[in-house]
Amino acid sequence: MDSVSERHGLRPNRIAVLSVHTSPLAQPGTGDAGGMNVYVLQTALQLARRGIEVEIFTRATSSNVPPVQEAGPGVLVRNVMAGPFEGLDKHDLPTQLCPFAAEVMRQEARHRPGYYDLVHSHYWLSGQVGWLTRDRWRVPLVHTAHTLAVVKNAALAEGDSPEPATREIGEKQVIAEADRLVANTAEEARQLIELYGAQPDRIDVVPPGADLARYRPGDKAAARAELGLATDERIVAFIGRIQPLKAPDVLVRAAAEVVRRDPTRKVRVLVVGGPSGTGLQRPDALIDLAAELGIADRVTFLPPQPPDRLAHVYRAADLVAVPSYNESFGLVAIEAQASGTPVLAAKVGGLGTAVRHNETGLLVSGHRIDEWADALGHLVDNPESLRRMGARAVEHAAEFSWEHTADGLLDSYTAARMDFRAIRGQLGIGPLVDTERVSRGGVVLPREDDWAAEERTSLATGPESGQTRPRALRRRRMGVRR
Amino acid sequence: MDSVSERHGLRPNRIAVLSVHTSPLAQPGTGDAGGMNVYVLQTALQLARRGIEVEIFTRATSSNVPPVQEAGPGVLVRNVMAGPFEGLDKHDLPTQLCPFAAEVMRQEARHRPGYYDLVHSHYWLSGQVGWLTRDRWRVPLVHTAHTLAVVKNAALAEGDSPEPATREIGEKQVIAEADRLVANTAEEARQLIELYGAQPDRIDVVPPGADLARYRPGDKAAARAELGLATDERIVAFIGRIQPLKAPDVLVRAAAEVVRRDPTRKVRVLVVGGPSGTGLQRPDALIDLAAELGIADRVTFLPPQPPDRLAHVYRAADLVAVPSYNESFGLVAIEAQASGTPVLAAKVGGLGTAVRHNETGLLVSGHRIDEWADALGHLVDNPESLRRMGARAVEHAAEFSWEHTADGLLDSYTAARMDFRAIRGQLGIGPLVDTERVSRGGVVLPREDDWAAEERTSLATGPESGQTRPRALRRRRMGVRR
Repeated sequence: MDSVSERHGLRPNRIAVLSVHTSPLAQPGTGDAGGMNVYVLQTALQLARRGIEVEIFTRATSSNVPPVQEAGPGVLVRNVMAGPFEGLDKHDLPTQLCPFAAEVMRQEARHRPGYYDLVHSHYWLSGQVGWLTRDRWRVPLVHTAHTLAVVKNAALAEGDSPEPATREIGEKQVIAEADRLVANTAEEARQLIELYGAQPDRIDVVPPGADLARYRPGDKAAARAELGLATDERIVAFIGRIQPLKAPDVLVRAAAEVVRRDPTRKVRVLVVGGPSGTGLQRPDALIDLAAELGIADRVTFLPPQPPDRLAHVYRAADLVAVPSYNESFGLVAIEAQASGTPVLAAKVGGLGTAVRHNETGLLVSGHRIDEWADALGHLVDNPESLRRMGARAVEHAAEFSWEHTADGLLDSYTAARMDFRAIRGQLGIGPLVDTERVSRGGVVLPREDDWAAEERTSLATGPESGQTRPRALRRRRMGVRR
Repeated sequence: MDSVSERHGLRPNRIAVLSVHTSPLAQPGTGDAGGMNVYVLQTALQLARRGIEVEIFTRATSSNVPPVQEAGPGVLVRNVMAGPFEGLDKHDLPTQLCPFAAEVMRQEARHRPGYYDLVHSHYWLSGQVGWLTRDRWRVPLVHTAHTLAVVKNAALAEGDSPEPATREIGEKQVIAEADRLVANTAEEARQLIELYGAQPDRIDVVPPGADLARYRPGDKAAARAELGLATDERIVAFIGRIQPLKAPDVLVRAAAEVVRRDPTRKVRVLVVGGPSGTGLQRPDALIDLAAELGIADRVTFLPPQPPDRLAHVYRAADLVAVPSYNESFGLVAIEAQASGTPVLAAKVGGLGTAVRHNETGLLVSGHRIDEWADALGHLVDNPESLRRMGARAVEHAAEFSWEHTADGLLDSYTAARMDFRAIRGQLGIGPLVDTERVSRGGVVLPREDDWAAEERTSLATGPESGQTRPRALRRRRMGVRR
């Protein structure tokens, strides 16, 4: 597809990436930063390697960051001033979307028109801003939801608060407005269609990747020495934000049960991450839980680790557990497997694809502690299974590279631009001209404006042309919002 | 000022008025509709009489309303689709500001560029949208806050929940971004300056008006007959939304105390309005309170009344009470006085200006029930005082006409447009040209864009021109957001 698209000049030269609520330069595993941050940064770096300039807009949350940072060759992070640096959490951010959008549009206006060829928004908050900039810049909007409120609320962890209805409404709007949607998995595509009414032919399934150069098999003993961990224990690691959604408590409870069943088992739980979301209300809850269950001496906590140190964690572990109530993809599961470490995961969302049951790890349906203890006990007792699965895991993870992801995104971008051009091409006008102004004999300038001009021009040419227009534009005219 | 401004062609021909959260066509006294709705509608009608086309954008909250309604000659109400019709309250609306802004901009784009000469936003939610449209349309933004979170939170009714910090942040942003601010009273101007850092020379104090043709003295006995009220009772009326902020409970308690002190007093409390805001959580609280205090038979409740019937209410009453914890102006107090009815009001916000103590009514500092009972008892027992104050009230209210208000707004609009033109004139370029594009030899078109182009052009001409630029633009470059 690349050669065709390049011949037509449809490959974007410069894209604006919107990541309002969390910076790609933030440390994953703490605050609101997680797999999405890694995704945004890694795909940007890969796209830049292909010659595409990437500018990532994120809300500035510290006075220490400059307005623009270089995240790597060809990748700029623009820290946008919108509201105070501190004191706003994700649920407060809807009040800052207009200021954020205004500032992004002011920054773009410093350049020649047509500076960005496309907008890619991540998470629904960014999608709301992306829709405004798309209208303004007349370029396609590609949107990745990453997580969906309806899905999250349907599988809510005990004690976790549901996402507000306003988020569901906002997501539905963005999904209806976006020119194309990128889903991380086929499961997410199905959710977009069935739960949000997305059109199947506007969705591209593009699996995220892992940094395979960084995460690869290595010396387990050396990794344990680096982290100060014993060499004679079976280590099962949890890597992620400590919050109900990620369910680290399920792992701790299952480990306690495994030890209760056979106290000779030398099991250690390694928790790597910081409290986040509703987990912030009780940051020590997991430590207290381990103490209550009598396995405080078998649980080690580490703060969120930078990528180099995280590579040691994956190698040091015999097993990585991902007990989340929902994961749109499950980047940790891929990174673990790339490191040759099998994964014990909940069979939810993208994890069903990320992990191959009985081949590269085990999938557990639901979150019953006895079932998690069965699976964990089985793996802990069978080093040969772990070795076999670890070897197979490396092969499986090789399919998930950021290079593949970037290729998929480029295809999606090109398709989005092709749709866009098709609509304009079919209408038979280069830059869209405001017919009202022409007929009034005013200043006759092409007006780079929004969809409305297209609609008016199209209606003027009669209904038959409207009937053959591509679906993307028809939808706008026939959809619920019109 | 008018003749000068008309000579310069600076009087606007068509303005966009933003009233996101409540329609000027909604019935005041229920839901979120109150004095602001009356203000938006009446000033629009008056401006239209002066030949200015007014288009009011509000969020559609019912499938029964058409996209466009004529509110009167020259006044259109555009019901904008942004989110579901029902189920969103004022605190949810920040999530719908981007969709609202996108739709407003799409509607504008159906017209020739320069369709609106100015944007006037009411309440901070509209201000956030106004800022985006101002950038886009390159026209001045005039903003009226109506109420301010910092002021409201400083004088919170018992049991009322404080306004969220996100509102204060959003208000501060809008106040910093607006080209001019319209304050209802000198008190509000002071609050804008001292609490929100507004620049004094950008504020115009324009008192709201009352519909003096409708609200004027009339036959009290006939009005009482119309409403089914007895002629031999002393009637004190409360007109407004039933919510803690408006403090109808203070009136009911004071009335109970007045009766307790002298049970021969024939006092009736007439409450006209529906529950709103936090009052919705306990819609019957006021009825229960009257029963608890043993004066259920002395309190009459009427639902919100249309203007014609409201005129009867003002005439039927011997006294109108406005015990609010905060009022930026207090429209009810003016309407009552215009009808020849004295007012008993709390000495807060604009009420200190709207009512002349001992001349057209009484002002009470604070909300102590014994002090309210003292004042109420005094007026109830002194028909001669009521008559004297009523006559003086009519004279006083005559100063507050919507005609005066519209004149004041027009002056503010003209000043805003003059500032705007001064900035552009000084920069020595007609339509602003993007120098980067010109130097690159690209398509040289004037680009109707945002402030950034001005800043760049200005910087290119050297710092000395920047020093003589009007304050409005300097502020943008030197303010906290840059």
